[in-house]
Amino acid sequence: MTRQSKLAVQALQWTGAALKVLDQRQLPETIVYDEYSDAAGVTEAIASMRVRGAPAIGIAAAYGVVLSVMRHYSAGSDQWRQQVTADIDRLAHSRPTAVNLFWALDQMKSALNQAQGDPLATALICAEKIHADDIAANHAMGELGADILAGAKGIMTHCNAGALATGGYGTALGVIRSVYRRQPVNVYAGETRPWLQGARLTVWELAQDGIPATLIADSAAAWLMKSGAIDWIVVGADRIAANGDAANKIGTYSLAVLARQHGVKLMVAAPTSTIDWSIKDGSSIEIEQRNPNELLASCYIKEDSLVSAWNPVFDVTPAELISAIVTEKGVVLNPSEHGVGSLKHADQ
Amino acid sequence: MTRQSKLAVQALQWTGAALKVLDQRQLPETIVYDEYSDAAGVTEAIASMRVRGAPAIGIAAAYGVVLSVMRHYSAGSDQWRQQVTADIDRLAHSRPTAVNLFWALDQMKSALNQAQGDPLATALICAEKIHADDIAANHAMGELGADILAGAKGIMTHCNAGALATGGYGTALGVIRSVYRRQPVNVYAGETRPWLQGARLTVWELAQDGIPATLIADSAAAWLMKSGAIDWIVVGADRIAANGDAANKIGTYSLAVLARQHGVKLMVAAPTSTIDWSIKDGSSIEIEQRNPNELLASCYIKEDSLVSAWNPVFDVTPAELISAIVTEKGVVLNPSEHGVGSLKHADQ
Repeated sequence: MTRQSKLAVQALQWTGAALKVLDQRQLPETIVYDEYSDAAGVTEAIASMRVRGAPAIGIAAAYGVVLSVMRHYSAGSDQWRQQVTADIDRLAHSRPTAVNLFWALDQMKSALNQAQGDPLATALICAEKIHADDIAANHAMGELGADILAGAKGIMTHCNAGALATGGYGTALGVIRSVYRRQPVNVYAGETRPWLQGARLTVWELAQDGIPATLIADSAAAWLMKSGAIDWIVVGADRIAANGDAANKIGTYSLAVLARQHGVKLMVAAPTSTIDWSIKDGSSIEIEQRNPNELLASCYIKEDSLVSAWNPVFDVTPAELISAIVTEKGVVLNPSEHGVGSLKHADQ
Repeated sequence: MTRQSKLAVQALQWTGAALKVLDQRQLPETIVYDEYSDAAGVTEAIASMRVRGAPAIGIAAAYGVVLSVMRHYSAGSDQWRQQVTADIDRLAHSRPTAVNLFWALDQMKSALNQAQGDPLATALICAEKIHADDIAANHAMGELGADILAGAKGIMTHCNAGALATGGYGTALGVIRSVYRRQPVNVYAGETRPWLQGARLTVWELAQDGIPATLIADSAAAWLMKSGAIDWIVVGADRIAANGDAANKIGTYSLAVLARQHGVKLMVAAPTSTIDWSIKDGSSIEIEQRNPNELLASCYIKEDSLVSAWNPVFDVTPAELISAIVTEKGVVLNPSEHGVGSLKHADQ
């Protein structure tokens, strides 16, 4: 493993004519980028989890729209608006839970609808702004989150909410990066079955950045909390309801309940593009169920009449179990509809 | 996968001259028995987790002593008692947490010390009695546990406390087998990282017996509990303190805390040989830490200065989170020192 002072690996790279997507399913064993030059390819890259993480999915989808405009408008099609709309619709169906996907596609649609000049230039400017804004938001969240975590001795995270899941720097891992720059802290990462994002991505990403981390089995978190080693759990989010309920990787709800029982606090770090203002609470969030074979494969068993698997990818943590929601626009402590609502029109 | 009405696969088979040990590390992909004709081999089989599960470890160790007597006494060594004692000592150091190991070795030592006739015959009779008694205890626990679970719609288990972990039939899975014979019930199994005993062994063992089961990621248990699908969690134990605190596979404590928060009850099913009367509570139980590479291997990372893993194999669930301890001698509801103590001199 090579060590670099700056994280050289990016989940997404725009070449000017294509989107290069780091195939995160193969990390950390193999670093390989797949290059997509149309929206259908980007849709597949999202659905297959080559790219994952709510903000990164949103950014990838935005570039997918750019590729669609490039293909249809630049090719001179009369039907280009309908064709782009169809591509956007397919991108929107790539995965159901992360709201950043729909948010980014809405941004792209608005930009294209309001475009005065060249639609391709408009689309590219919008996508690059979504990308750049996400990185800036991560850095802002990192500083705000680090303020709250001052003095923490042990921080645990779940899944990967890092540079790999975002435009760069990371949400939860952005906060951890910022804390680590200020003070020594023990970082723990849960494996995050079944895709092992914690084991494969988080520990590796932190090591690339020179930050030591300790991997644990997901089921060991409670025992670790009981030992007193953890002050805070810091996670990202795939969708936050207007009242602060937060959907995130399966296992987050478990950690939230366990944290409350052990006097450990829970921070959710996510850009405001993760907030779905259209839903009052988490009960409306569609939870993606993935293929049972993601679980069964590891044990050589195929689903049949006797053996099945229940494989929800996300769960919803109620706001009352969250100590702080950290966004680029500010922090909401002990989130509620009122507190989260204050972010809606906050100045960045 | 072949379906059989009776479980054909046994963790341990005594041939008369050797102990055949099913290599559970290779299940369910490969069914292979390794044959051991001396105590050192059995020690290695336990340490390497070819055989696992507290009762099965105890039985294997007992046969290991038989093999030691066979080798040293039957070979006519003058020093056979010292040699057998040294073998027993090595067997006792094969794994630290399961008390059944020490209990079985104590039984063998007592039998040999009191032997009037042929030490080999004495040792074999004692080991076979330990084995047979364990199977009988499992069936007794199965019936007692099933009485308590009457009407349950959903039962979850963790790790493998089945026929593979015992002399046969199983502790927690014995209870589930007995329930399933009486009424329909949905059985859920946690994967149980890092060794995947739930995924590789429990789901497979149940399918061999015609019992449908649903596999879940360990971290999905809380979300499943929140859905209302689970009435009881049923697990085995590796050591139970005099007050009812129970050491079991890492993740059991997590499930216990989550169960209490969701109104789900927790049953610990274990033979009385699992009770360590010498310890007042669970704080004295040595928790085995295994090689960090058991976690790191799955993500292609080697332990170094930046990347490490914390890999306790067991945790301790306090008695107050346990709704029922089920043994072959009777059931203790809401266990305490008084309740557990009642088992000490109970008639079987």
